[in-house]
Formats: sequence, structure tokens, C-alpha cells
Amino acid sequence: MNYNHLYSKTATGIKASAIRELLKIIARPEIISFAGGLPDPNLFPRQEISRILQEVMKNHSTEALQYGTTEGQKSLKEAVLALVQEYEGVTLQPENLLMVSASQQGLDMCSRIFLNRGDAIITASPTYLGGLQAFEAAGADVYGADSDEFGLTAEGLEKCLKDLQSVGKPCKFIYVVPDFQNPTGTTIPQERRIQILELAEKYDTLILEDSPYRQVRFEGTAPDTFLKLDNGKGRVITLFTFSKVFVPGFRLGYIAGPAEVIRHCVILKQAMDLCTSPFLQLAAAAYLKGGYLSEHIQNIVAMYRKKRDFMLEMLEKYMPKEVKWTRPEGGLFLWLTVPEKIDTQKMLKIAVEEQQVAYVAGVDFYPPRNARRNDLRLNFSYSSFEQIEEGIKRLASTIKKCMK
Amino acid sequence: MNYNHLYSKTATGIKASAIRELLKIIARPEIISFAGGLPDPNLFPRQEISRILQEVMKNHSTEALQYGTTEGQKSLKEAVLALVQEYEGVTLQPENLLMVSASQQGLDMCSRIFLNRGDAIITASPTYLGGLQAFEAAGADVYGADSDEFGLTAEGLEKCLKDLQSVGKPCKFIYVVPDFQNPTGTTIPQERRIQILELAEKYDTLILEDSPYRQVRFEGTAPDTFLKLDNGKGRVITLFTFSKVFVPGFRLGYIAGPAEVIRHCVILKQAMDLCTSPFLQLAAAAYLKGGYLSEHIQNIVAMYRKKRDFMLEMLEKYMPKEVKWTRPEGGLFLWLTVPEKIDTQKMLKIAVEEQQVAYVAGVDFYPPRNARRNDLRLNFSYSSFEQIEEGIKRLASTIKKCMK
Repeated sequence: MNYNHLYSKTATGIKASAIRELLKIIARPEIISFAGGLPDPNLFPRQEISRILQEVMKNHSTEALQYGTTEGQKSLKEAVLALVQEYEGVTLQPENLLMVSASQQGLDMCSRIFLNRGDAIITASPTYLGGLQAFEAAGADVYGADSDEFGLTAEGLEKCLKDLQSVGKPCKFIYVVPDFQNPTGTTIPQERRIQILELAEKYDTLILEDSPYRQVRFEGTAPDTFLKLDNGKGRVITLFTFSKVFVPGFRLGYIAGPAEVIRHCVILKQAMDLCTSPFLQLAAAAYLKGGYLSEHIQNIVAMYRKKRDFMLEMLEKYMPKEVKWTRPEGGLFLWLTVPEKIDTQKMLKIAVEEQQVAYVAGVDFYPPRNARRNDLRLNFSYSSFEQIEEGIKRLASTIKKCMK
Repeated sequence: MNYNHLYSKTATGIKASAIRELLKIIARPEIISFAGGLPDPNLFPRQEISRILQEVMKNHSTEALQYGTTEGQKSLKEAVLALVQEYEGVTLQPENLLMVSASQQGLDMCSRIFLNRGDAIITASPTYLGGLQAFEAAGADVYGADSDEFGLTAEGLEKCLKDLQSVGKPCKFIYVVPDFQNPTGTTIPQERRIQILELAEKYDTLILEDSPYRQVRFEGTAPDTFLKLDNGKGRVITLFTFSKVFVPGFRLGYIAGPAEVIRHCVILKQAMDLCTSPFLQLAAAAYLKGGYLSEHIQNIVAMYRKKRDFMLEMLEKYMPKEVKWTRPEGGLFLWLTVPEKIDTQKMLKIAVEEQQVAYVAGVDFYPPRNARRNDLRLNFSYSSFEQIEEGIKRLASTIKKCMK
């Protein structure tokens, strides 16, 4: 039968994630993939997880296997409040916190809480593709603001805010990935964060801070989160996730924000999925209370730093001089810019089919009206050192071929 | 700060679930609660779960702890296809199936795939509250059709379909909980299912079949699912969940439907949460492949049958003759109707505060324009036999007091 008369604007308006579709194509083992954002599976804390699973089944099975509260299991919320205090110096109350099925659910939830179809938001350009997808599902009109080597610029942001004001359209929120941004690897400096927060106040809008990589810092000092800089004024909602610092397979994250906004999120989450798995929440609580997290983060940081260094070294060694790239202080990604005549989306076909190396084309990370076509994203956390050398070599060949 | 200028219609339009809010109030141990829809935790298959968790960590830890595909883990999908074949006699392909974070996510997903704000759907009246909440979040205009002791009537349904047609509004889908409906416990007979399906064809709309309790049948023969009756014509989408026949704490369910609709659901799920926990999916796959499910269902059925019988016996024993109730052939709930002068929502305050017994007021299950105020829902799966006797006694006292 034909369903076209039945579909909603949401169904017809969103397009498949370029990355998730790509991941299916490049699953062939002979392909070296820098495309996904996957953690290195060799670092998964398997022994600790086996231990905490046994502990949950031994001591908390009734709570773990039953329905949970929508807000999140008490023991995990307590552990997370302590974690946010310790890592970020931010004191939150339980009503400022909602456990979610990882950051992507937080993005979807905040989109639905704030956006009617056609409402405007501002993001850096480029920005996280999964964010764009959630905003698109809600029918958002996404304005991409200029970024430089430190991410979103205050000037670019204010230009967008003014443009929107001049057409009488409120900016519902400003979406930022301030630390080791996906896709560029850039980090917004402290001073600029303060400026951005002041602009949010001046134009009476919110900041949606997405912070999945913040703990994966290789060097230098971390600026404060927007959440901390806000200092309880209620202008910032922050999404954290356990996907990068623990394991993605548990699909656990949390939203920190003003109690009133969190309350709206809780009511929406009742309709979305009732609650996030209490079993996995209690496992994560046991992991945090067991004190395993900080050591695990040290392991991740040490390994990803080496991999970043090695990828940078290989880029120096193999890339033609016309190619530029970022040097992220942390995270999982770096961003490569090739000469303007190359369209990296078209080049991807050659890379995969002729050279058996994959990346994500930059164009997928741009809000539609801002798209540039000569960037690409490379992930350095997942591949082995051998694969990094071989893959960069192949990518350099592909680029050289396309430059001709 | 004030957020009112920033909230969406979704945020301001949905109200908190009466049940989930009630569950927080009645958590006090002295209260006997027939309010929730919780499985009996004494029946959780703890040993089998401990075993499968070990197996997942031993044999599949890399797949389990990493990101999964949005469609669902291959091994679970295979096991579920076999299950649907065995239990329902329906042959599906992998592209007809999407793993979701339990039925509620399926309800939310289907609402978003089909409903623009103001679009019409038809449900039985009363119907599942979590369904109403998901439809409300999408801005649906919900038409409640008449039901009788066998659930949704074909006449009631056609009246709604005609009314909508006469105002030029398409019905996006018909929502049914055909087996042991939540809240009434009623089951739609085979002949009536065929009529309902024919009406869906006649008015060119879809059936959204929600089937969480179907395997919990105490007696009699199961009619076919709408999915089976549809026979691959593509007019039925069916939601199943592991919450009642396995454990709710794993938050696992699946949507079966036409490949094209499932594909739209997959793309939306990318934006919603990327994927459902592969760890829990692999655990469920191990559970199914271990052959534990059918024995567990037998245990549940045996215990809930006893509890239903006992609750019916206690109702006979203690209730005044003006009170009527349903006699469900399965599931977790029965439905009580008290004299019209009693408003069960107002009575709930007296029940909880004076008699320390809780239920869910019937009004919460009605689409707004159809609300009746003298019904209530009782759950019989969660409480012990002792609590059932004492609770029904207390409820009878409350009703008698309010009848005066």
C-alpha cells in the first residue's frame, strides 16, 4: 500500500545519518575506517564490568529488573551528582539531573521541549551531525555561525542572533560542543565562553552544551563548562554521556539543567520510553562507586593521545602540503581541509572503492545553508597504529589523485 | 529566568502521567497498591539472567559494549523472527523488524512518523494511558470509539471514521490493544478483528496494534494478531515488548511492520537515541536462544491466573452489589465500575489517605472528550495474596463510604 498520505512532516523531513549509513557499507574487513566515532574496544573495562554485573544481580536484582522511575535510579543520580561536583566543580540537586539513554536522547528531548516546526536555533558551522538530525526531526531552522580554529566565534554568533532578531524570530537555543568538538576537534577558550554566555543573556536564549569528550583531554588546562560559568542562573542545559569514558553499549547519559526544564524533560520522557534501563543504571552506579572511572579515563587518555600523535605524524609524513588539519587537545576526531577544487563527498567513493579507506565527508556536518565541500573528519580512537599509518597513506594517495 | 517564550507546544501540551506521578506518592510501604502495572518481582528469572550476563561478557563483550546498529543486533533479530513465527505463525523478514527500547518507544516513534499537530487518530475508549501520552506529545487529536465487554466495537470505530471523513480529516491510524487490554482487561474476538481490519482498508488507514500482554493468557484460545490477519498487506504495525514476559528493567521491545514504515522508524531512531543497548539486546538473544522464555511464561501465567482468580473471589466477597468488574482471560488488569455518583479520581484521595489502598482512576485512560468518571483500574500481578485480600477489603470500605 501507499503510505504517503499518512506520513508526518517529521517522517518526510529527516534524512538518514550519513555516518550510520556509511558504517554499514564500510563494515567489510579490508576497509580501514576513520569514519565512525567508536571508542577503542581493546580498552573496554571488561573485568570491572563482569564484576559490577554480578554485584547488581547479587544485591539489587529486584530494583534492576523492575520498571524504574523516569527521573533515574537514586543511586546513580547520587553518584553522578558527586561526579559533577568532583570533575566540574558544579553543585547540583537531584531535580537538576535526568538520566537518559545517552546524549542523543538528550538532544532529541531538548529539541522537542523547545522547538516547534520552523523555530530557529544557532549552532557552530560545522557541528555534530547527530545534533543536526535531532534538530531536523523537530523541524528546526538551523542557523550555522562562523567558527575558527577555536570553534564557534562570538562575532559569528552575534551576527546570527542579530539576523534572527531583525526578522523577529527568537533563537530557541545555541547548540555548542565546546570541548574537542565533533567534527573539528576544536575547543572554545574560557574567555570566549564567557562572551557566548553573555550573548545568550543579552538575546534571552539558552545554551545547549553537549559535552561527550570533555574528560578525554590529552594536554593543557580545561576551560570551565558553560554549566559552571552560568553559576545557577538557569541559562545552560548540559548533556553528558558515559559512551566515551565508560562504554557506548550501555547507552547512558545525563542532562543537567534548571529544575523547571528538567521537569519538562521528565514528563516528555514518560511518553518517550517511561525510563532508561534501571539495570544498566545500577551497573553504572556500581562502576562509579567502585572508583573505576578515573583509572579508566587515564587509560583512554594515554592511548588516544598516542594515537592522535601518531595520526598527526603520519599526516605530516604523507599528505601533500596543500592539505591542512586541526591539532585537537583531546577527543576522538580531527578535521582535514583539502584544496577547494576537491569535493570530499565525491572523493569518498574513490577512497572506499579504489583505496579501501573511509572517512566522513565534511558536508554532512554543516547546517544546509552553510555547507562547505572540501573538509573531512578523521577518527583516531578506533583504528590500530598500523591501520592509522596505512589508512593515512591511502587517503593521501586518494587526495593526490583528486588534486590532479 | 522565565522559559515560557522558549518552550514548544509539545512541552506545554503534555501532562504528566497520572500513574507515574501516583507511583511516587504511594511508594510508602504501608500502602497496598493496585495502581502500577508491575510484574511480580518474585518471578524474575534471576538465575537465568545471571547466566546469560556471564555468557554475553564471555563470548560477545566487544559487540555488547560498543555502539550497535540502529536496526538492532543481528542475533536478537534472528531470535525474534523465530519467536514471532513460533508464537504467532507470522513470517517476517529482518527489514520488517526494529528493536526498540520497549513498547513505549515504539508508540512515541509511530506517533512521530505519522502525526503532525492536529492530526486525528482513533482509539478505544478507554485505552492505554502511555499511548495517550505519546499521541498527545505529537499533538494528536484523539477520537475515542465506543467499547464493550470485548473492547473496541466495529460500530463505534466506523462511526468515528465516518465523522472524521465528513469533516475531511484523515484518520492517521487506529490504535488497539487487542489482548487483555490495558486498562479494561478485554480481548477483541477474532470476528471483530476481521471487521476492524476491513474498516481500516475501507477508510485507507493503518492499525497500530499494541500487544504487551498477549502471551499472558490464562484460558481460552487466542484470536490471531492483527499482524497475522493482515497477511502481509502492510496495513498493520505491531508493538511487542519483553517487559511482561521477561523483565521490564531491560527496556526491550520490537516493532513489526511494513519494511517502508520500519525504514522511516529506523531513520527517526537514529535521531532519537542511535540504538537500543546492544548489551541488553545480546542478553535477550542469549535468553531466547537458551530456551528459557516458554518456561518463564508458564510460570507467569500460572501465578497471575491464581492472583486473578483470587482477586475476583475477593471482589465477590467484599464489594457491594452495585459494583461491576471485568473478568479478563489474561494480562495484568481488571476494570471496576462503581455507581455513577462516585468520581473515582476524588475517591482516590480518600482511598490512599484513609484506607491506604491505591488504584488508577478510570478518567486517566479516556481520550479527553470521552471521559467517564466512575471506573477504576486494578492490577493483580504485583501484590501478594494477602495484600489482595486486605486491599480489596479496604477498597470496598472506601466505595461503601462514598456511596452513602
